[in-house]
Amino acid sequence: MELVELNKKIKEYVGSEVELQGWVRNHRKQKEFGFIEFSDGTTFKRMQIVYTNELKNFDDIQKIRVGSSISIKGVLAKSEGKGQDYEIKATEVTLLGDSDEDYPIQPKRHSNEFLREQAYLRPRTNLFNAVFRVRSVAAMAIHTYFQDHNYVYVHTPLITTADCEGSDQMFKITTLDFKNLPKKDGEVDFSKDLFGKEAYVTGTGQLHGEAFAMAFRNIYTFGPTFRTEKSNTKTHANEFWMIEPEIAFCDLNKLMDIEEDMLKSVVKYVMDRCPDELEFFDKFVENGLLDKLNKLVNSKFTRITHEDTIKILKEAKVKWEFEPEYGEDIAKEHEKYITEYFNGPVFITNWPKDIKAWYMKLNDDGKTVAAVDLEVPGAGELMGGSEREIDYDKLVNRMNEMNVDRNTVEWFLNLRRYGGCVHSGFGMGFERLIIYLTGVENIRDVIPFPRTPGNCDF
Amino acid sequence: MELVELNKKIKEYVGSEVELQGWVRNHRKQKEFGFIEFSDGTTFKRMQIVYTNELKNFDDIQKIRVGSSISIKGVLAKSEGKGQDYEIKATEVTLLGDSDEDYPIQPKRHSNEFLREQAYLRPRTNLFNAVFRVRSVAAMAIHTYFQDHNYVYVHTPLITTADCEGSDQMFKITTLDFKNLPKKDGEVDFSKDLFGKEAYVTGTGQLHGEAFAMAFRNIYTFGPTFRTEKSNTKTHANEFWMIEPEIAFCDLNKLMDIEEDMLKSVVKYVMDRCPDELEFFDKFVENGLLDKLNKLVNSKFTRITHEDTIKILKEAKVKWEFEPEYGEDIAKEHEKYITEYFNGPVFITNWPKDIKAWYMKLNDDGKTVAAVDLEVPGAGELMGGSEREIDYDKLVNRMNEMNVDRNTVEWFLNLRRYGGCVHSGFGMGFERLIIYLTGVENIRDVIPFPRTPGNCDF
Repeated sequence: MELVELNKKIKEYVGSEVELQGWVRNHRKQKEFGFIEFSDGTTFKRMQIVYTNELKNFDDIQKIRVGSSISIKGVLAKSEGKGQDYEIKATEVTLLGDSDEDYPIQPKRHSNEFLREQAYLRPRTNLFNAVFRVRSVAAMAIHTYFQDHNYVYVHTPLITTADCEGSDQMFKITTLDFKNLPKKDGEVDFSKDLFGKEAYVTGTGQLHGEAFAMAFRNIYTFGPTFRTEKSNTKTHANEFWMIEPEIAFCDLNKLMDIEEDMLKSVVKYVMDRCPDELEFFDKFVENGLLDKLNKLVNSKFTRITHEDTIKILKEAKVKWEFEPEYGEDIAKEHEKYITEYFNGPVFITNWPKDIKAWYMKLNDDGKTVAAVDLEVPGAGELMGGSEREIDYDKLVNRMNEMNVDRNTVEWFLNLRRYGGCVHSGFGMGFERLIIYLTGVENIRDVIPFPRTPGNCDF
Repeated sequence: MELVELNKKIKEYVGSEVELQGWVRNHRKQKEFGFIEFSDGTTFKRMQIVYTNELKNFDDIQKIRVGSSISIKGVLAKSEGKGQDYEIKATEVTLLGDSDEDYPIQPKRHSNEFLREQAYLRPRTNLFNAVFRVRSVAAMAIHTYFQDHNYVYVHTPLITTADCEGSDQMFKITTLDFKNLPKKDGEVDFSKDLFGKEAYVTGTGQLHGEAFAMAFRNIYTFGPTFRTEKSNTKTHANEFWMIEPEIAFCDLNKLMDIEEDMLKSVVKYVMDRCPDELEFFDKFVENGLLDKLNKLVNSKFTRITHEDTIKILKEAKVKWEFEPEYGEDIAKEHEKYITEYFNGPVFITNWPKDIKAWYMKLNDDGKTVAAVDLEVPGAGELMGGSEREIDYDKLVNRMNEMNVDRNTVEWFLNLRRYGGCVHSGFGMGFERLIIYLTGVENIRDVIPFPRTPGNCDF
């Protein structure tokens, strides 16, 4: 059976024989008995296995090393020892797969940096077992929220030939032989490439998402996303996952309602299903994490314009590293201040158009766009969204101003000619959410096998 | 409100005023009244809107073209007309977004080929509304099945520097400038590339999945996958989605149990939630679809070896295009015959090692591997899986035989040294499943924006 199933009905199993397969996480040996800290990975809580020299292979059992896979039979009992409520008194312990002496994950504290170099083994530790289970449960929380609210999950394409985001921010993808690139008139001849033209890996599914929102009303994407940024920071990775909902007949206010409701629902879902993991994070990673999450679930998010935000920042008795300015972006220190000022999550709306994307709706003032960023305490910007520009001519103007090549996105423009309507959408970086949920600070520690500049091992 | 919510409680709403936003799918005008076929995309069923010249903007309403977005208010009533049970007697009809006269999706039959050229508009048709909703619900069915069974969802990386699958089958990915490739000793200098070496987009998450299965016991992946094949067939695309579960302490027999249980569960889930869509497919796409699905859910899948399969094929009184042979792969015509022979899904096990992957467990006969393909009536091979080779030396031998570069996957080999155990996994092409569920034959018609050789529009 699986440990998670045993744990669910553990009281009923006291006195019964159980059989488990899993791994040795720790092994303490005494002369006449021993204790195995056992995990099969299906749950955060481990199980103590007690064995004595009454077992005929006692000497062999004592040789079993940490990391080995074993099969055990025994009787579940209340534990008299400290540190656990239950234990299994083994009647059989069988080694299935040995663990060589150089096994890197020993029962002691390893640094996160060391464990990154053992990315393929680190999910066996308490910390990463908890992180990656929360990641899985949070992904399900997101799917559950949107499916329960009549959203259609759309798999937008990753390969694209449109360079509307600026091709220098996208990976190029090719089947051509670098050593022998076909040429025509001195240029690389991409007509020989698989798609007959230059192709990229896209960084957003939004444009395609809009097309589907104009058919299904409510849609969301959830898939991997790529950036070529050469940033070696705690929050940047070149491959990460993103959620991009897009909703027809939805203005900026309704969009904020949805973002707030979704986030609370996802946090609740994870709190209900991962209490042991969150307690562990609260104890060992971020003191106060549970309070933070509980508070979020019960708070009313503040809504304030970018202009009023700058006013508050300017009036603050703080020595800024970057002076806040009307018409400009805000820095990490400002994000932090404003969430502390309002003591909770803050929606900042109506941003200066020049620092936001070309597809966002231009407000009547001609200077700001109907965009919204959600800032949360401890994680900064968690979501970014906007009402979309639905006026064909205004959209074309903005594309021209921002040097977007309209030829490759003519179809996107056409959405404004064929039954367009007020619609809005947002993007949420999935890793940002996991960082927020776990308190783990470095994006490298919430992605199973992270890709960052110069790092693409495993 | 949304049409899907109205439909759920439609009896209760009779006589009540409702307000909806959505699109005009058809518009039939009479002199003193008119009928609008209305959809907001949230449900397959459309709603009839009846309006009369009592409305003060009657003349404007009559000008509303197919494809336009509108807002309507009215009273829900039982319909006296044919073709629908209910209709809304409009008290207000407001045009929100006009549809230009060249709108390509008119209320008549369009060919799938034509609609592929209008990929951004085709989800507005009945067929593609149904296909892409089923796709969304089927994705949720898969997540639900695995999460309910204690599997951890793992986001395995797409970017890789390991060419263990053969780099000629993978897209190359780069940030280098094609026009100005950095050179060193006459070769392209990939140390200047973002990851400091040549990088690819992978076609499988299995190796990484195995690492996580050795920590969580049960894991699955569900993400996009890429192939560079230059095949223009009904079943090939260069970008598609795949599910790859991997299970520790699981042999080939248990793997088949899981595959069978999962497939039945997913089919049931979709049947429960998309009855209107499946009925539509049954009527207009694949006659007998519902029978096929019902039969699958209630059948016991056959299990037979590759050798016995060849025996049956050889004994068959059939003129084959490709003669079945021991030790060789089977062709589409054989797959079809064998599912008809057993009148249901068939697991074919123990395949000749030379036609299967290097990581599959070598059987004691030294000739076959513990692999299994699931063949289903009407869709051919739906899943492919195997027990994995867990013997370190045998695995290295197979890698050498198959020319796999072990340097890039040393970590994968190490999984056999650090608490390895019997484990198995399978892959299911998500589009194959959608083809099976909908009866739609061409993979281009079950992917929102398909990518195939020479085709990367939108």
